[in-house]
Amino acid sequence: MQQQISVITLGVVDLDRSRRFYVDGFGWSPVFEASQIVFYQMNGFVLGTFLKAALEADMNRAGLLQPGAFSLAHNVSAKEDVIPLMNRLAQAGGVIIRPADEPPHGGFRGYVADPDDHAWEIAWNPAWPIDERGLVTFGV
Amino acid sequence: MQQQISVITLGVVDLDRSRRFYVDGFGWSPVFEASQIVFYQMNGFVLGTFLKAALEADMNRAGLLQPGAFSLAHNVSAKEDVIPLMNRLAQAGGVIIRPADEPPHGGFRGYVADPDDHAWEIAWNPAWPIDERGLVTFGV
Repeated sequence: MQQQISVITLGVVDLDRSRRFYVDGFGWSPVFEASQIVFYQMNGFVLGTFLKAALEADMNRAGLLQPGAFSLAHNVSAKEDVIPLMNRLAQAGGVIIRPADEPPHGGFRGYVADPDDHAWEIAWNPAWPIDERGLVTFGV
Repeated sequence: MQQQISVITLGVVDLDRSRRFYVDGFGWSPVFEASQIVFYQMNGFVLGTFLKAALEADMNRAGLLQPGAFSLAHNVSAKEDVIPLMNRLAQAGGVIIRPADEPPHGGFRGYVADPDDHAWEIAWNPAWPIDERGLVTFGV
């Protein structure tokens, strides 16, 4: 069994609003866009933003809730990159829910909610290497 | 800006119960275990299962809800692998929320909720290549 996740799919209410956060905020480019979904090719997997009603239909489960009990993290390679990225995400429709500070385990991080209330941790974690392809390796 | 996600963190109520689903169900091995968190090294990023109260404290946001408006997908390389894996996940504490069938866009997939109600799509999608390292590439 591969220790592998293929897709992270976020339920969104407004694709244009979501796209603005990911394209203008993070600076990412979609690999595919259709009327109900936008896909982004990530570091070894795919991120999808899918209309929430369509995700509920596909999943066969109505009533998906926000904020959900999860977070996504985007790590940056330098401590001084954390705050400017958080500010850019806020300008692109995000909401800062925890200003950046130093967690007990080291590094530097804050949290920003995307326009659908999905939480993103923006972190500098010098113990976790990131290679030139964006592949991230656990470290202590 | 790297088009990169470093960590997916799932809020869980009982680490042992969650560990059973991921270790016995998926057959994955933790890379790190502590009293509040278990990390798994994935395909170019890290999966964390973190006590929900600790995630809420870290995120500075109480009241995280389930089921959240997102899904994770684990793609398999053969159609006939989908149902056995779903059954194994159910035996390890998961709940099948959509039995496997063929979606309009092709392939074969079903959904299983983990013990904390996080939804996993188990899918065979022949259009999306998976390499020997588990790196997944979007395709149509």
